[in-house]
Amino acid sequence: MIDPSHSQNDLEFMKLSQKMSRIDSSPIRKAFELASKIENPINLSIGQPHFPCPANITQALNQAIQDGKTAYTLTAGIPELREALADKYRTVNHIKTATSDRILVTSGISSALFLLFNALVDPGDEVLIISPYFLMYPSMLGFYGANVSTLSENFQPEDIAKFKDKKFKLIIFSTPSNPTGKIMEKERLEQLAGLAEKTGAYLISDEIYELFDYDKKFLSVGSFYDKAITLSGFSKTYSMTGLRLASILAEKEVISALTTLQQYTVVCAPSIVQWAGLEALKTPMDSYIQDYKEKRDFVYNELKDYYEFNKSDGAFYTFLKIKGRDEEFVQRAVEQEKIILVPGFIFCEDREHVRLSFATTWENLRRGMEGLKRLAV
Amino acid sequence: MIDPSHSQNDLEFMKLSQKMSRIDSSPIRKAFELASKIENPINLSIGQPHFPCPANITQALNQAIQDGKTAYTLTAGIPELREALADKYRTVNHIKTATSDRILVTSGISSALFLLFNALVDPGDEVLIISPYFLMYPSMLGFYGANVSTLSENFQPEDIAKFKDKKFKLIIFSTPSNPTGKIMEKERLEQLAGLAEKTGAYLISDEIYELFDYDKKFLSVGSFYDKAITLSGFSKTYSMTGLRLASILAEKEVISALTTLQQYTVVCAPSIVQWAGLEALKTPMDSYIQDYKEKRDFVYNELKDYYEFNKSDGAFYTFLKIKGRDEEFVQRAVEQEKIILVPGFIFCEDREHVRLSFATTWENLRRGMEGLKRLAV
Repeated sequence: MIDPSHSQNDLEFMKLSQKMSRIDSSPIRKAFELASKIENPINLSIGQPHFPCPANITQALNQAIQDGKTAYTLTAGIPELREALADKYRTVNHIKTATSDRILVTSGISSALFLLFNALVDPGDEVLIISPYFLMYPSMLGFYGANVSTLSENFQPEDIAKFKDKKFKLIIFSTPSNPTGKIMEKERLEQLAGLAEKTGAYLISDEIYELFDYDKKFLSVGSFYDKAITLSGFSKTYSMTGLRLASILAEKEVISALTTLQQYTVVCAPSIVQWAGLEALKTPMDSYIQDYKEKRDFVYNELKDYYEFNKSDGAFYTFLKIKGRDEEFVQRAVEQEKIILVPGFIFCEDREHVRLSFATTWENLRRGMEGLKRLAV
Repeated sequence: MIDPSHSQNDLEFMKLSQKMSRIDSSPIRKAFELASKIENPINLSIGQPHFPCPANITQALNQAIQDGKTAYTLTAGIPELREALADKYRTVNHIKTATSDRILVTSGISSALFLLFNALVDPGDEVLIISPYFLMYPSMLGFYGANVSTLSENFQPEDIAKFKDKKFKLIIFSTPSNPTGKIMEKERLEQLAGLAEKTGAYLISDEIYELFDYDKKFLSVGSFYDKAITLSGFSKTYSMTGLRLASILAEKEVISALTTLQQYTVVCAPSIVQWAGLEALKTPMDSYIQDYKEKRDFVYNELKDYYEFNKSDGAFYTFLKIKGRDEEFVQRAVEQEKIILVPGFIFCEDREHVRLSFATTWENLRRGMEGLKRLAV
């Protein structure tokens, strides 16, 4: 009954949804391919800590397995973790309205973003992204048909004023920032909250790098703006990017909608990882953060006379302004110095930056800085 | 600068995306609430095995943790698991075209469905679902704006013929079926493949219950139709529903698009679970399946004189036709017999069925059958 040769329907058959034409994975794939082609590279492109997940957390994982926690959990997450997260949001982030019924446990921040964009954004909605930005924001917002505007992270009050009559559905930023390492100042957070309030927008603060705060500058916008949607992760803080765990703090109505959507999509975050998350929240990470602070300083001191860039406040990235075009610089860095970097166009509108990650060993970092100095001339 | 009282924008501010109005979690929540209200219920509503995840699999999880496998994996999954899955699809499912580059490892079947629906379906597209169906199919397809038609699992050739001039984007079914336990016969699979070919539709076969095949009737449509998209899970087979692992087998172009989308959404399936998946594929499950086969027989023999229903071929469900309305029957079952069931309207268009799960202990099942016999009169 079936003709084994391909029929005239072939072209139609292979048609993807229209929104698939709006995303492209090639930039990231290129970086991977570059890295895989050379021997013993100095990889300064990695978006995760170089230290292992602390032993008390992996022990908690083992315990959860031993306890047989392999079945579905409640969609919103195990109550114990939601309670512990509420406590963390209240005491660490000073978000006094944080309660467990305002929290959804998600399968990583990326999953949290996809739930939010699906639940909040309609095609044609106007959204605002602080630039430079995490690649996923414009990609997925564009995928779901939003019209994306950007605003520099170094915006002035007059830049905000320009938008005040606009109807935004959503404003999103990361602090500390991927890729610049900037921590958003209180004044700017207040201006963004004011803009969200004026334009009727949801304000999303992606705080996945919150613990990487080298000069104690970090402040959650949720600490003074109740309507903020706060994203908090485990992946970067505890070096468990592959385990897929994060959380969203938002108003109850939003959490309720997101929970419904999670029920129909990822169902729940991995069960055993949720139990390990409880232990993670008790883990002191000071020594790890101190190491990255010294690396931040080292990168700054080594490169400040060679490149134009801001000293990072947090995260583990520095966003260097380079001469020439980003992709050519990245290519030259690989060929001449075996250094892997990420071209800046993934994170912003210009082609004059590269992202450097200092989440690596001292040896790599020292070799990398020597190479980057040679590349600057 | 921010007015702490709620502004006039409040209503606009809380506006969810339009598609959120198309999904509703209340039916499932109601079943949960019913179950939580009574002491020592006979729970015949559970959608997962009652046995624990086999020890060799949890040991493999422990080993992956000990080996420090907590970082991101490749988006498409670890190569070792993709290879092992390709081998499984070739040898167990007889899909001879299965190769690792045609496989995407996903964070559960639900995640696989969400990727597929996003990548393949545009608003207004016509889709066909075999009925009764897994709730997520019409819910998420409707969410993404598709026009859903249904076709009875007991369709005749003339029913298929009616659709031959239709332009379907996607046809989806589960075999063995949730909720009926029916395994789709070869003749019907051929007719569905023929319809997909004629109408230019993607044909998706959800085979999450494939191992629960009590009379050796199961056949993958992919074994004779190369273009089929086959979904295979670990959750039900190995009792690891909370660990979130499944896979999609499809043509390379589809896998490539889905991989891009996964990169922007869940990023990767949980790393340690992928390593455990390798071990899972080697696990003999015969004794577990034999137990469920005996339970299937027991349910059939106990209830066949009391209800109208088909003997299940597979999965661990039986779909009973009841007198009166499904929700009232479910309510009565709880109140009079402490039995938890799922109302049929979640799975089909009528209100005359309930779903019974025999994934439970013998004691529960015996008590349940006695109660159900009393409820039939």
